[in-house]
Amino acid sequence: MPLTASTAAREILTGLHEVMAKRGSAQVKLDQVVDLIAGKMASEVCSIYLLRDNKLELFATHGLRKEAVHVTRLGMGEGLVGTIAAEGRILNLDEAADHPGFVYRPETGEERYHSFAGVPIVRLESPIGVLAVQHADPRRYEEVEIEALQTVAMVLSEMIAGARLVDGARRGRLRSAGPLRLSGLRLVAGMAKGEAVFHEPRVVVEHTVAEDTEAERERVYGAFRKMREQIDNMTREAEFGIAGEHQEILETYRMFAYDEGWSRRINEAIDSGLTAEAAIERVQQRTRARMREIDDPLLQERMHDLEDLSNRLLRIVSGRMGTAAQTGLTRDTVLIARNLGPAEILEYDRRRLKGVLLEEGSLTSHMTIVARAIGVPVIGRLPDIRHSVQEGEQILVDGDNGSIIIRPNRALTTGFEHRMALSQKRRAEFAAVRNLPAKTRDGVEIGVMVNAGLAEDAVALAASGADGIGLFRTEFQFLISATLPGRDRQLRLYTKVLEAAGDKPVIFRTVDIGGDKALPYLADVHDEAENPAMGWRALRLSLDRSTLMKAQARALIEASAGKVLRVMFPMISEPWEYEEARALLEEQLEWARQGHRKLPKRVEYGAMLEVPSLAEMLDQLLPRIDFLSIGTNDLTQFLFAADRSDPRLAERYDWLSPAILRFLKRVLDAARAANVPVRICGEMAGRPLEAMALIGIGAENVSITPAAVGPIKAMVRSIDTAEVRARLDAVLAKPPRDMRKALADWARRHSVTIS
Amino acid sequence: MPLTASTAAREILTGLHEVMAKRGSAQVKLDQVVDLIAGKMASEVCSIYLLRDNKLELFATHGLRKEAVHVTRLGMGEGLVGTIAAEGRILNLDEAADHPGFVYRPETGEERYHSFAGVPIVRLESPIGVLAVQHADPRRYEEVEIEALQTVAMVLSEMIAGARLVDGARRGRLRSAGPLRLSGLRLVAGMAKGEAVFHEPRVVVEHTVAEDTEAERERVYGAFRKMREQIDNMTREAEFGIAGEHQEILETYRMFAYDEGWSRRINEAIDSGLTAEAAIERVQQRTRARMREIDDPLLQERMHDLEDLSNRLLRIVSGRMGTAAQTGLTRDTVLIARNLGPAEILEYDRRRLKGVLLEEGSLTSHMTIVARAIGVPVIGRLPDIRHSVQEGEQILVDGDNGSIIIRPNRALTTGFEHRMALSQKRRAEFAAVRNLPAKTRDGVEIGVMVNAGLAEDAVALAASGADGIGLFRTEFQFLISATLPGRDRQLRLYTKVLEAAGDKPVIFRTVDIGGDKALPYLADVHDEAENPAMGWRALRLSLDRSTLMKAQARALIEASAGKVLRVMFPMISEPWEYEEARALLEEQLEWARQGHRKLPKRVEYGAMLEVPSLAEMLDQLLPRIDFLSIGTNDLTQFLFAADRSDPRLAERYDWLSPAILRFLKRVLDAARAANVPVRICGEMAGRPLEAMALIGIGAENVSITPAAVGPIKAMVRSIDTAEVRARLDAVLAKPPRDMRKALADWARRHSVTIS
Repeated sequence: MPLTASTAAREILTGLHEVMAKRGSAQVKLDQVVDLIAGKMASEVCSIYLLRDNKLELFATHGLRKEAVHVTRLGMGEGLVGTIAAEGRILNLDEAADHPGFVYRPETGEERYHSFAGVPIVRLESPIGVLAVQHADPRRYEEVEIEALQTVAMVLSEMIAGARLVDGARRGRLRSAGPLRLSGLRLVAGMAKGEAVFHEPRVVVEHTVAEDTEAERERVYGAFRKMREQIDNMTREAEFGIAGEHQEILETYRMFAYDEGWSRRINEAIDSGLTAEAAIERVQQRTRARMREIDDPLLQERMHDLEDLSNRLLRIVSGRMGTAAQTGLTRDTVLIARNLGPAEILEYDRRRLKGVLLEEGSLTSHMTIVARAIGVPVIGRLPDIRHSVQEGEQILVDGDNGSIIIRPNRALTTGFEHRMALSQKRRAEFAAVRNLPAKTRDGVEIGVMVNAGLAEDAVALAASGADGIGLFRTEFQFLISATLPGRDRQLRLYTKVLEAAGDKPVIFRTVDIGGDKALPYLADVHDEAENPAMGWRALRLSLDRSTLMKAQARALIEASAGKVLRVMFPMISEPWEYEEARALLEEQLEWARQGHRKLPKRVEYGAMLEVPSLAEMLDQLLPRIDFLSIGTNDLTQFLFAADRSDPRLAERYDWLSPAILRFLKRVLDAARAANVPVRICGEMAGRPLEAMALIGIGAENVSITPAAVGPIKAMVRSIDTAEVRARLDAVLAKPPRDMRKALADWARRHSVTIS
Repeated sequence: MPLTASTAAREILTGLHEVMAKRGSAQVKLDQVVDLIAGKMASEVCSIYLLRDNKLELFATHGLRKEAVHVTRLGMGEGLVGTIAAEGRILNLDEAADHPGFVYRPETGEERYHSFAGVPIVRLESPIGVLAVQHADPRRYEEVEIEALQTVAMVLSEMIAGARLVDGARRGRLRSAGPLRLSGLRLVAGMAKGEAVFHEPRVVVEHTVAEDTEAERERVYGAFRKMREQIDNMTREAEFGIAGEHQEILETYRMFAYDEGWSRRINEAIDSGLTAEAAIERVQQRTRARMREIDDPLLQERMHDLEDLSNRLLRIVSGRMGTAAQTGLTRDTVLIARNLGPAEILEYDRRRLKGVLLEEGSLTSHMTIVARAIGVPVIGRLPDIRHSVQEGEQILVDGDNGSIIIRPNRALTTGFEHRMALSQKRRAEFAAVRNLPAKTRDGVEIGVMVNAGLAEDAVALAASGADGIGLFRTEFQFLISATLPGRDRQLRLYTKVLEAAGDKPVIFRTVDIGGDKALPYLADVHDEAENPAMGWRALRLSLDRSTLMKAQARALIEASAGKVLRVMFPMISEPWEYEEARALLEEQLEWARQGHRKLPKRVEYGAMLEVPSLAEMLDQLLPRIDFLSIGTNDLTQFLFAADRSDPRLAERYDWLSPAILRFLKRVLDAARAANVPVRICGEMAGRPLEAMALIGIGAENVSITPAAVGPIKAMVRSIDTAEVRARLDAVLAKPPRDMRKALADWARRHSVTIS
């Protein structure tokens, strides 16, 4: 049976080739095409309808009345032809008039034809026309005939799009596509405006009819080999989160990549005379059409995978394998992908990359962490984004509420730009405050440092207005590397960071990997813990795998030669963990001393308090540390047992809850009594109202995101510490029903600058 | 090509059928079989080797020297024949002597034959012989010939196993299989001894040659339909954990169930003359053999799924669809399954079900929760268990260290039984203490209640020696139900529990579902939270979905008519959640009052403290509650940010850490000052040394697992509270390096009964 299909299609294709090669007007060619198909398929009628001004117009027919050409016009969804175009599906009916969509058009004279079969003519996944055959006998067309029709429709689409037959038909859909608003999951907040660029560019099939079938077959074989290799490599990498795709997706990729049915069908399409590209696309169209009939979400999900793979195969076979990063961005861009890896996002030109939209994505992926660090808004969980937008279309990204607008009209764009300008203006105002001292009205100096993770962050430190880097996340280098960063690479980074920081202090936090931050080169660190945030991560992992920590300790010691080394350890639950980590660092110092290496002038040791249990043991811990840092992000999620990546809990608990403030105050009081400085790191400290409350319970140092330096300094300069502290004492002794409202009201009455 | 294969196989099968029907000795029949195959396959040599006394003995040959029959014997793995049997694979060689495994046996006269092909004869997945053909020309056998050989080998295996040809051959492998020790993941601790029973029994194919090919085809079609239906149903159920299988597995099941290639190959096997059962098995053997060649863990994983499905199809087609629970257990059983659902385990006779072994399974699955409740040891993550053991073999389960022994010898059994007897003796000793009062040497009464979740637990209360049910986990009924338990079903359960408890108090905890305890009938509750333990669960979910909670409140109120209703709410993070929950219950009371229903005599409201933040707000909470319960399982995992299901953290933090004890003491002190009774629920309180420490910090009530009542009462009766409290005050003021050792030493010195 497949042979018959190939043969029928092949003969028509050869004929089409000849028609195309001849000179003549578009209309003449179309007329020849319908005659050819009708003849080869022994069909009494063959007609071509093309989309013009959003109507399906009869462009050519063999068998229907010639007067109807350019007269009969059907709307999308109207009649059988309109149904085929609107739903992108095939109709094959033994009695056309029985179909609920049937519409009789007297000018065509089609009343004597009973059987009807039609297939959509598709370009870039949008219908641009319909190819239909009809017959007087009430019989169904054979599967092989339908397949031949589809192959012919594919070649026709090339002819039409190439504008050799008609102009403008292709733009039908685009012209009618208006603004579209979609909502996803906010992964990184922020606003952006730019043109859609696909991370993995779509390939438009240019040539459909093969010159040399054997050569095309070879190309497909080669592409399959290459694709399988790629998938195998990705599987190895992606197990650990370094690649963009999830493991499960890749497993499905693998199954399809090695699926005989798929390659066989592509081969059959090549047999029928198509090029490799067209054959891949043809099979994909066919699968898409079949899947549309099966309304099953699980299978649909699989289809998504097969679409990706089909696109990948197309890109390989047509030699367009690079991502958009390799091509380079030419204007402000909103990047679109299914998923993205942390290293992949860094390959893009940061001046042009304004936003990222993902079909999947998660709040805790490495990519999200990196995007947050470089300040690129990201919206995830937009399942159909790659089908809803075309390359080059305008997109407005409102990362703050997780929504986007595709193809915005003038009014939408103006409103958006107004809001963007406002926030830019606010930013400019804060930029002015940035370099003023963070001193309260009653003269208390608040230490304002920034959080950082990349070498560039340290370079930007001078302009940030901050007093130093209060939290340098050393795991960033690990997250964005494909191989384990050895001591040398770490040394280079730390040296660069310390040089860029100049006289300003840098506090290095030893790596917090493991849990949801698994790494490919540490295979056994990867795990399937039920609750990775409470898993084997950070210091727990570093102490169990001390080789890793030793290398980092040596790199830190060497980079700090002649300077002060400030180091702190994350995720300490009990004091013995701090003691072990410190002993390990001291051993490496001793090793450096015995090797007569240049030592740091001094080492200051700190502990991160982010696990609640540590607060119970401050009497044991405080005498042993030089400084304490409180990581409010992790701490609050453990205190409330509320995963901050769960959107259903996002609004449930407030950083301004008395429980958190009382907890923090107890820690601050204990540290003050022991004369140990405390710094609050995390999102909480970067929000003016929250930061005001923190100062109110006695905090005097924060480490925040660079963008928050201006707003926080503005707030600090507007308060009187004695007043704020008195207020906080009062509200914590007898908590009001709504603490946030109470504090916001108070701030307003006392003219505190809360942006 | 498949047609040729079918035809060749079919002709041989018809001949075999005739041979079998005739009278004659086994040897005569075998001789006829080799002549027949050689003739039909135009092969110069055809030989059959069968496994006898662990050697592959030449039983019959056409073409080799007859003197070699019953003389030539090869060990497993020896020569080509031994390689085929040992590795269960096919060899197809144009030059036999070139193969590294080749061994020349002069008595056979086979030197003149160059090409060689052989297939294993398999029974119950174990090789029992080899069928080989040879030819003088150095050519490879065609794929279709190999397939025909495999089909013939399958029919031969039936003949051999049916003992119509030879005796004893089959037992070769079994006799040689010795004890095997395997390690898995301990899901539920405990020791057990019993015979292996497969939850889904394996089907042994009895008849291989079809009488009526069309009838067999119909049977397979029917079975496919039924299987697809089953998988579709399971998918719906299993999305939420109620079925045994994971969603991902079921997705793969679906793909295979709808895979055309699979059903086509089974059809082809039927064409060749096999029965439906034999055709399914035949295709499975073929796939198995192919997969063995591809050494790919991902594909192997998929094969596992296909094996399951193939087995399911076999069970459907042969009408043996029930699980072992339906057949009934006849002796002490160790149940073996890939996975098991919570309702499935409850279908088994609890007197017979001694242990469960799973290929997969997880610490937090519903099944594990239920198995723990009914006290059946479970070991998971034994990936090959279904291939390592046969039905009826003895198994020793050591759930305490997660290991098992299959086919133990006398010595292993004796040692194991000795250890079991010891723990039974200890249990008997404690049984004697169980009914004595839990009063310390200095006269302090400790309230000892038990945790429960099933109606049966309440029935067992009287014999447990406990003062009541301190924690009735109402979510159990939800976990083991396939549909939402409505108010009526809840009412029946609560009434039964209260009746069974008699005068003893029962404290109902409202449902703790969500997070990792998702339910099929609450589809949107299911989620993919990164950290489900800190997710949208328990009271968070109940308050957001108040319909559920209202139904439960009404059922509790109605069941407690005329009695005291004691109710508490789980996972409270802030006092407002308690207030909302209480208000909801009071509204339902008001509703009952207005409906003139009989009301509870009194309602006592309690809060579970298991989220650390609540401890900061006791000043707000305590005046509003009648009692406080501390859930130490969840509490300690949040305090330490350490997932208790992560084996790498299991040993890291200790319940006897000063951080936990100080935290708990602060709560106990605050509650005492406010005159609110506190009860400690959870594993910690059920361990004697930990319970001693709890009493030392002021605890006077515990709720524990029933098995711990004896040991805890024994400990209580051996201590002096004043002494213990003084000791705890001292060690908490200045914590020793190893708190556990310090307390254990002290307990020993003071003759505290610590089992």
